[in-house]
This record gives sequence, C-alpha cells and structure tokens, in this order.
Amino acid sequence: MRKSIAIDMDGVMADVEAQIITYYEKQYGKKLTKKDLEGAVERQLFPEENALLNILHTPGFFRTLPVMENAIETIQNLMTDFDVYIVSAAMEFPLSLKEKYDWLEEHFPFISWKNIVLCGDKSIINTDFMIDDHSKNLDYFKGTPIMFHAFHNIHENHHKRVNNWNEVATLMQEYV
Amino acid sequence: MRKSIAIDMDGVMADVEAQIITYYEKQYGKKLTKKDLEGAVERQLFPEENALLNILHTPGFFRTLPVMENAIETIQNLMTDFDVYIVSAAMEFPLSLKEKYDWLEEHFPFISWKNIVLCGDKSIINTDFMIDDHSKNLDYFKGTPIMFHAFHNIHENHHKRVNNWNEVATLMQEYV
Repeated sequence: MRKSIAIDMDGVMADVEAQIITYYEKQYGKKLTKKDLEGAVERQLFPEENALLNILHTPGFFRTLPVMENAIETIQNLMTDFDVYIVSAAMEFPLSLKEKYDWLEEHFPFISWKNIVLCGDKSIINTDFMIDDHSKNLDYFKGTPIMFHAFHNIHENHHKRVNNWNEVATLMQEYV
Repeated sequence: MRKSIAIDMDGVMADVEAQIITYYEKQYGKKLTKKDLEGAVERQLFPEENALLNILHTPGFFRTLPVMENAIETIQNLMTDFDVYIVSAAMEFPLSLKEKYDWLEEHFPFISWKNIVLCGDKSIINTDFMIDDHSKNLDYFKGTPIMFHAFHNIHENHHKRVNNWNEVATLMQEYV
C-alpha cells in the first residue's frame, strides 16, 4: 500500500523567513539577515509592538511567499511513490486561506485540491510521515515525524532533521 | 481520555438543501420542495446545464447558509465531553474557504480556529467519530462513522443513521 506524507507549507514549502525579512524592511525600514534570525527570540528581533503579527496579517504576505529551493521538483518526484498531502495551519490567519490555495495552484499545479488541508492544530492528521518545522505538530504525530530546518528550531534535536529539500529526497528514498 | 468527533459542515451543520432551493428559485425561477430532492438525480432536478455548479459557485452561497435546526446547542453541549473538530471538504470551492470560516465565526463563535479543518478528501482525518452525510467520507473512516440524513443518502443503509441533531445528542450520550 502506498504510504502518505503530510507536508507543511510555511517554513517548509514556502520560505517564510525570507518573506519576513523582506516585509520587515519594507514596513519598518530595518534590514535583517537570515543569520540574525537563527535561534533568536521574537521580541528581540522585532522590538516594535506586534511587528511580526502585523507582517503576517498583511494582505499578500502568504500569496507572494518565495518557494523553498528544490521543493517543487522534489515534491513532484515524491508523488510517484507516496500520497502527498499539503497540511497547513492556516486558520490562525483567515485571510491566508485563499492566498495559500492560490499560491499552491500557481507553484504546485500538479497537486489536486483533494490533497490540500488547511487546518488549525494538526493533531487529527493521520499520515505515515509528517514533514514540518514545528515540534508542536511533530511531537504528537503518530507516524514518522521529520523536522525541517528553520531558524526557530535549531536547538531542538528530538526529531530526525532535514536541512533542505535535497535531504528530504535522499531520506524518503529509504522508505520507497 | 476525551474522545474526538469530526463534524461535517455542508448538509450537517448547514442546511445546503434549503439554500439550493432558495438559490435555484432566485437564479432559475423554479420552486422546488425538499420532498422533490429526496433520492432524486441531479440532472432530472436541475435540467439546465451546470445549474447546481453555478449555484454552488455563487459568491455568498456558503456565507449565508441557514444553520441546521438544533445544531448550535447540540454541538456546544457535545464540547463538554468531546473534542469537536469541524471538518469540511471546502477545497473544491476555493471561494468558500473564507465564507465558511466567517460563517463558523458568526454562528459557532465558541469553536476555536484550532479545531477547524478545511480539506479536500477526508481520508487522512483521524478522530474517534465522524458525523457526515456522504458515504465517500464515512466508508474509509477508521473510527465510528455516523451518517447524517440527507436527500442524497436516503437509499444508503450501511452506516448508523441520525436524522437530526436531537438524534445526534441522544446517540452521543451513549459514548460519554
């Protein structure tokens, strides 16, 4: 039987870190680097009240996210051997619902609407694998959790880690 | 441990049948009754090409759905004993994403965004119970399936059936 993978969007398929840096400079006039973000605490990085929340609520933020390097070709290849589901915690930002749908349609047109899940918490998602950058999603997952590298998770080492999409491709070959 | 229930929106929390009748009369000038819809085939009921699809794609259709009788109080009561998740196959109608979110916020403000799932197919949903009006969602469900009465499912009898929200309340008391 084909195995299934739940793949997170923000921070995994989409480069949220790069987009935050772009929007922060545009809206607050300060230029950060990816290095600045590593393991940093939000209120130190963004001293302005609600800066990050304001950025995430800006119309267009999710619609124009850059695609993570090698995500498109790797996911398309994974679909040969696995049932791939896109599972994104979008409910916190209702404006993002349609933006995320349109973003997927633009960059990943080969993924059917049947395989897209926009949810709140991910505790009721039941697939064989989950690729995500957040421990809160991976910790209670019943299948095999795979942590995708992000600035906020560099100190967490209790899940198998992948640093980029090439490493996902190599790792998943073991499970075909 | 608290058990979890996945509850469908269209045809279960929201009276889609009533809304279709309203919109069909408004857009095509013909008045149908709920009786006409019982077990009927779509192309006989709606001879105009794509009539039903046009109705379902009309902006506002999902935002203004009537709430099913007794759904609000029953679901609020169920939340005392169960983890309730709203699981709606919304991806086929991308315009409905925000409309469904707003509809839930209006009529069910006590349901957290964390417990809302807008998806395509429901095969990866893992809860203890699923209340739904479609066999396609219930047939492969791993927990206890409960079929909610609808005009299109009156000839299907392979799942436990409830005819209304009062029957849901009575049935779920057995599982508390």
